[in-house]
This record gives sequence, C-alpha cells and structure tokens, in this order.
Amino acid sequence: MESFHRGAYAIVDAAGAVVAARGDIERPVYPRSAIKILQALPLVESGAADRFGLTPAELALACASHDGEPAHVQTAASMLSKAGLDERVLECGAHWPYNEAAKLALAAAQGVPGALHNNCSGKHAGFVCLGCVMAGDRDRRGFLGGYVEPEHPLMREVSAAVESATGCDLTNAPRATDGCSIPTFGIALRQLAHAFARMATGQGLAPGRAAAARRLRAAVAAAPFMVGGSGRFDSRVMALFGERVFCKVGAEGMYCAALPEAGWGLALKMDDGNNARACEVAAAALFEALGVARNEAERALLADLSDVTLRNWRGREVGRLAAAPDLRRTLARAGI
Amino acid sequence: MESFHRGAYAIVDAAGAVVAARGDIERPVYPRSAIKILQALPLVESGAADRFGLTPAELALACASHDGEPAHVQTAASMLSKAGLDERVLECGAHWPYNEAAKLALAAAQGVPGALHNNCSGKHAGFVCLGCVMAGDRDRRGFLGGYVEPEHPLMREVSAAVESATGCDLTNAPRATDGCSIPTFGIALRQLAHAFARMATGQGLAPGRAAAARRLRAAVAAAPFMVGGSGRFDSRVMALFGERVFCKVGAEGMYCAALPEAGWGLALKMDDGNNARACEVAAAALFEALGVARNEAERALLADLSDVTLRNWRGREVGRLAAAPDLRRTLARAGI
Repeated sequence: MESFHRGAYAIVDAAGAVVAARGDIERPVYPRSAIKILQALPLVESGAADRFGLTPAELALACASHDGEPAHVQTAASMLSKAGLDERVLECGAHWPYNEAAKLALAAAQGVPGALHNNCSGKHAGFVCLGCVMAGDRDRRGFLGGYVEPEHPLMREVSAAVESATGCDLTNAPRATDGCSIPTFGIALRQLAHAFARMATGQGLAPGRAAAARRLRAAVAAAPFMVGGSGRFDSRVMALFGERVFCKVGAEGMYCAALPEAGWGLALKMDDGNNARACEVAAAALFEALGVARNEAERALLADLSDVTLRNWRGREVGRLAAAPDLRRTLARAGI
Repeated sequence: MESFHRGAYAIVDAAGAVVAARGDIERPVYPRSAIKILQALPLVESGAADRFGLTPAELALACASHDGEPAHVQTAASMLSKAGLDERVLECGAHWPYNEAAKLALAAAQGVPGALHNNCSGKHAGFVCLGCVMAGDRDRRGFLGGYVEPEHPLMREVSAAVESATGCDLTNAPRATDGCSIPTFGIALRQLAHAFARMATGQGLAPGRAAAARRLRAAVAAAPFMVGGSGRFDSRVMALFGERVFCKVGAEGMYCAALPEAGWGLALKMDDGNNARACEVAAAALFEALGVARNEAERALLADLSDVTLRNWRGREVGRLAAAPDLRRTLARAGI
C-alpha cells in the first residue's frame, strides 16, 4: 500500500436522519462544484429556463463541471445566445479544456481558450439566463455586471436556494471564493447530504422547488455527457444509472449524490482534496455497498470504478486504486 | 482550513543517527524519482560519463524529472548521440511534456510526443550510456534490449548502487514498477535519509562513489534547470542555493534532499502521494526550519515556497498552501 486518502462522509434521509456516517460530518466544508444542481434551482424556478427554451442538455450543462469538449462549448454558447448575449458577459475566467484531446486540438488549431472552455461556463450561462429574467426591464448587461459577487442580487438568489436546500444559515458561515469567482460557503457534510436527500425526494422543498429538482435531475439523466465529458466518472455513472443516481464531483475532494430510490443523499469530502483518485473511487464503493446496482452491467461499472487498474507510460499494469475495506465495513455496521 | 496533507519524514546524519523525525520512518516506501541521483552513480563510477564526455548539464539531466522543454529534449538527445544511439533505444515510454507551454507549442506545431519528452528521458539516456560501457565488445543495442527489467545486468548495477547507498537489502524488499518501467523498491525513510546524508558528505561511501556523488551534486548545482524546468520547485531552490542543497521530488509524494553543510539527509513521504502542494511546501518549511537559508533572498524564496498564494482563473487570490505549524514544532522539539 503506497499512498492513502482519508475522508468523511454522511448519508442522510429526507427527514434529516443520519443513515450512515464516517468522520466529522459537522465540520463546515466548501462544497464547491458538487452543489451546482442546487445553484441551478432558481434558473428553473424563476421561469428563466422556460422563457429561453433551455433544452435538457442545456439544463444539464448548468449543473456541470465539463471538460471543455466542443459540444460543451457549443451548448454554453447556445444558452447565452438564447438570452441575446455572448461569452463576453461571463465572469468565470478562461482556462484550457480539461479534456486532453480537446485541449491539444485547440492548440493544434492555433486557438486560445476562452470563458466558454471554463468547466463552469454552463453554470455561469445558467446564472446569466436567470439574471436576464431578474433584470426585468433594466439593461441586461448593466444588471449582470459583477454577478459573481456575493452581494449581487443574482448571487443572493443562488445562495438563498443553497441555504434553503441545506438548511444551513449562510449569514455567518465561512465563505471563500471558488475557482470561477462565485462565493462558496462552509456547510456541514450532514447538511449537504440532507439537501441531496431533499433533491432526491422533493420532501422538505416547496412544490415549485421540488419540481425544479426533478426537472434538473431528469435533464442530467437525459444528457449525462454534458455534466462532465468523455470518460468522466459522473458522466459514466449517470449514463448507465439514469435518474436512479444523481452524482457530482466538486473541487478539493468534494462529492455529492442523490439516490431517489432509497430517498437518501450522500456528501463526501476527502481530507487532501483529491478528486479523481480519492473521491470517485470512494463514491463508487459507497454506491456498491448501498446496493444501487440492479444488474450485471451496473455492478461491473461500479466494480471498475471502485478498483481501478493503473498503467504506466508503456501501458504496463503497475498498480491499483482501490477503496479501503473499512469504507464498506462502516456501512455494514450501520446495517446497510 | 479546507484540505490537509499528512506525511512522515526523517532527517538523518551520515553515521545513521536520526536527527529529527515524524511519523513512521521504518515503513518501506517507494522512493521513485527522488533517488535518481543514486541511480546515476554507476554512470559516473563506471567511467561512462567520461568516456562519452558528458557535460554537467547532461549529468544533471540524468538525475532529473524534467518538464520536456526544448532544452531538456535536446540534452537527452545529445547524451544518446554521444553513445552512438538515438531515442529508439529508450524504454521509458512517451508522454506529452509536463511543461504547459512546451506541450501546447508541440501540439501547435502538429507534433507528437516521443520518449525524449518523457520526464525520465535523461535518466534513461544515462542508463544507456552506462549500458554501452557495460556491453564492452558486445552489440550495444542487443545488450540494451530490455534494460528496464529488474534482472537485466544494467538494472542490477543501478539497484546495487541504491542498495549500498541506502544500506537496505533489496533482495526481499517490496518491488513495484515505476512510471518509466524500471523497478522501484520499498525502502524505509530512515534509510533513504541516511543515503542522502552519505551523498551529502561522502562518509560511508567508497572513494570512487563519494567522488561520483560530489560530481553529480556539482553538476546539478551548475545546471539546475535541467533537473526540473521553468518554475519548478527543485530548479528554483537549487538555482539559488547551489551546492548547499541537493533536492529532488519523486512521484507519489516522495522527496529527498542532501544538505552538505549540516551533513544531513532528508527523506519525506506524503501519505496521499501529492507532490506539488504537499511535498514541496513541506520541504520548503523543513529547509526554513533547518536554517539552510543564509541571506534575505534565500529566506524570501523559502518563505514563498512554504506559504503559496493560490489564485483562481481570473487571477483573484482565493487561498493559501501553507505548511502546518506542527511541522516546525517537531523540529523545535528535536532542538533544531
């Protein structure tokens, strides 16, 4: 055993009861991109999604940390275009596509990355659509300027949705700035898991918000590629499980999931902030242990994702990433 | 405090006495690229470095995990050319340059990466030069085939140097395959630190080996860019400290250093395998606490490297990477 990742998780039902947990689930953590689906609720509730005729793929992109592949970039551009705007309105910053092939192709075409390539461009395009409705008769560009700031009416609306879904009073919560410049608030894993149990079931949400949650989950299930990209964990899981699993990674080792069949929410934070080889392997093992898989294909996918073969530059098998047996034992002790 | 990295380290003198330590320093860890300087000893001792007229820059590259910038690629090619060979002999595999600008420039020029871009190409080119001397009258290419295999005479020679420097019997040590296909052996942090104290002082090494150690350290100090690249931690530290610090990162959170003035060796392993934001920050803090800096510029560099400002995609300051106060307290308790 060469390297280790440690973390904490909470599995909570819609009534707020802790089904299983490990580690400190009351310490505030920054959920970052793991809660984009909560931040997208006002986009649907406000009527903005309908007003601009957003497609399921576009709604999925609003919940995404995408890899900047051409379809992601085009979809983000389409959302802005429907609102009569373009990428110049985005305040997320630019970075090269996370997808290696897309990045190299862009470089080979003598291109440079823009805000549409930013993994958060879909979330920001959703904010922009929401902002256009909130602006009413005011000038859209004028209203949207500085929309990433915590005190901007748009960001207050987004944060209010997070506050009501998690039940966490954000007024005095720790606050940091996310990679894409919007605020992220310190919220306990228990509260995050509770929010995702609410998203899974609609319980504890006002009817309009519960309907928005269902619509967003269905959109992501219909267009799972949009939420991540080629080969990405979240996209692979949701492509197979459909609406039976909503799951989303966030920077710094964050992971949240909604499991509608069980009516549970899951929130996971790895101490060291590692996503791909810590969070995702642990999440796959938790899905396995929670019995989410129904058939052989689903079991096989989770087995692949919870015990990953590592190969070196010549393709030789040189190791494995595997969930610790202890992770499953904790659930067994909780009677799952 | 959002994310945490844990680890263990040993600081040992040339007699093998533990000067300071934290965590389990007897558990075998895979040192990987952190001990390339040990693996380069036979290149010098065998006379191969002299026979092929290797320059300090070329010897530094033999100890390097380089970023695949043009100067690295050219230097590796030059080493092979001096031995009458080319990159086709390399068994390290190919990958895109780690340096982002070099990678994007290669893609923009419609290029593809080869074995020379592999971060280990200098180490492998050094192995090839050694192998050419070991081959004697035999066909060089024939002798070199499969040189990465643990039982190949070349790799046995390299492993023997590691064995004698560390004092660790590798016969029954855990063995894994490194990213570049050569074997890596499980060795205790205490033994690794002891090896670097020997490299720092020459004590406990045969005269020829001690001379080789001095020559390699001097080569790296003369060409610190070769050992890493633009902006890389090891290159920045050694560019300023010269022969007063030899330091080298290795995959999976490994770090080794030789401190000739104190006569100490340092070996550090971060549990989660994180290099850039765990190992390097911890190493900089340890150098600070060990009093390696002599002047304001040196103190300023270590302060920068042990407390790093993080910026998001728009350049906003969003956080810090900082060594835990506890790291320094451990040294203080050891009377340092």
